[in-house]
Amino acid sequence: MVLYLIGLGLCDEKDITVRGLEAIKKCSHVYLEGYTSILSVDVENLEKLYSKKIIIADREMMESNAEEILDHAVEEDVAMLVVGDVFGATTHYDFYTRALNRSIKVEVIHNTTILTAVSACGLQLYSYGQTISIPFFSETWRPDSFYDKIVFNKSGGLHTLCLLDIKVKEQSIENLLKRRKIYEPPRYMTVNQAIEQLFEVEEKKQKKICTPDTLAVGLARVGTETQLIKSGTLSELKEVDFGGPLHCLIIVGDLQETEKEYLEIWK
Amino acid sequence: MVLYLIGLGLCDEKDITVRGLEAIKKCSHVYLEGYTSILSVDVENLEKLYSKKIIIADREMMESNAEEILDHAVEEDVAMLVVGDVFGATTHYDFYTRALNRSIKVEVIHNTTILTAVSACGLQLYSYGQTISIPFFSETWRPDSFYDKIVFNKSGGLHTLCLLDIKVKEQSIENLLKRRKIYEPPRYMTVNQAIEQLFEVEEKKQKKICTPDTLAVGLARVGTETQLIKSGTLSELKEVDFGGPLHCLIIVGDLQETEKEYLEIWK
Repeated sequence: MVLYLIGLGLCDEKDITVRGLEAIKKCSHVYLEGYTSILSVDVENLEKLYSKKIIIADREMMESNAEEILDHAVEEDVAMLVVGDVFGATTHYDFYTRALNRSIKVEVIHNTTILTAVSACGLQLYSYGQTISIPFFSETWRPDSFYDKIVFNKSGGLHTLCLLDIKVKEQSIENLLKRRKIYEPPRYMTVNQAIEQLFEVEEKKQKKICTPDTLAVGLARVGTETQLIKSGTLSELKEVDFGGPLHCLIIVGDLQETEKEYLEIWK
Repeated sequence: MVLYLIGLGLCDEKDITVRGLEAIKKCSHVYLEGYTSILSVDVENLEKLYSKKIIIADREMMESNAEEILDHAVEEDVAMLVVGDVFGATTHYDFYTRALNRSIKVEVIHNTTILTAVSACGLQLYSYGQTISIPFFSETWRPDSFYDKIVFNKSGGLHTLCLLDIKVKEQSIENLLKRRKIYEPPRYMTVNQAIEQLFEVEEKKQKKICTPDTLAVGLARVGTETQLIKSGTLSELKEVDFGGPLHCLIIVGDLQETEKEYLEIWK
């Protein structure tokens, strides 16, 4: 039978493709990969549109019970739903290759991701360098290699898309030690927090690529009705209230004339 | 009323999202942007699923009659369909800003593009540098700046996605001079042609980044049922028959262990 790996896109239950929806209708088991990303919608909404019960596959299930999920796919059609596109995270590719190794037929149904939906701000997708991730700094862990990647992109005149950290289902050290399955409230990095951290690294590395005057674009909830895009200097954007998650940030490289015009719209 | 800009995704009529399909159903006029890309399906199939007549908006219409299309959107819901995602080409962003300037409400409905669907080969999307386009060489026009971008990406250990040229609705010089609207048959660059051109530039620039031993991945018809992925050296891939369009090519940068394993699948 077929294992369908289906991207859900960015916002809510209606961002699935017609092909994806038709596939789900055929499936006996429908899993939602629930830890590498978040949907801005309740699982109930998905279940209603799909007319299917959805099983949340958390990190533990994806890592320890992958073979069990695949057992089903040997005998019946099974769907694994992933927010965004299917192969945003390595875990999914691992799952995919396990299926191939067991000679299970796999069909991948792609969808949009933030990596291309950021084109909503008008900067050309062909003028971006490597995408980076900015993690939450903690007291003891303040990595800064992402900064060097911005430096590299800038040296080629390229824009840098910065994806901002998400912490869901995190346990406090106390709860972790006591093996209590009590989770901290989810945290989503804001554009403002990202800029603060960038300034901190700039202070240390002094390459002048994340200064208060650096041009940037902040984006929130891309692709939803409440999408917000703001262009400006980092010091300007640091003061903007972008509202609820998810946020991302673009450090602007060399601008073409048309790109300059487009960014004016979002000032 | 609303102007909907709707991405159609990669393959056929069923790759539209449920949200996109619902939007089309509300529209009085449905345009299909027909020149920057190609669908692997006839317009009739789209019309059947959407239950709407589709007007092909060719280059001329998009550039000269944009305001006319927008006139409709002032009074009724109008959809502009774009293969892939909405803002793959600058033309579409221009159209979008014209609408904003006329205070027309615009809703963008994103979809997948080759830029992220290439993740089907197992290379991490976060390890790509700038995407490049390889144009068909002619007798008199053999640009090679794309080569320098591969060099740049490689210097950061990054993979390079090479999009390959498409020539549709091209006129011969004779027909152009005589103003005859007779078009040449469409041409789509193959992985093999791209590699030949890369070798030619390598010969000239000698940076050893596109040699016969360079690791690469060739992809054809990504996201369709006949998708073909092959990894190997450039000299190996040059001999592979990838079949019909569209093709693309990835010049591989530094590989992580998992990426190495994944590429083994496609040997």
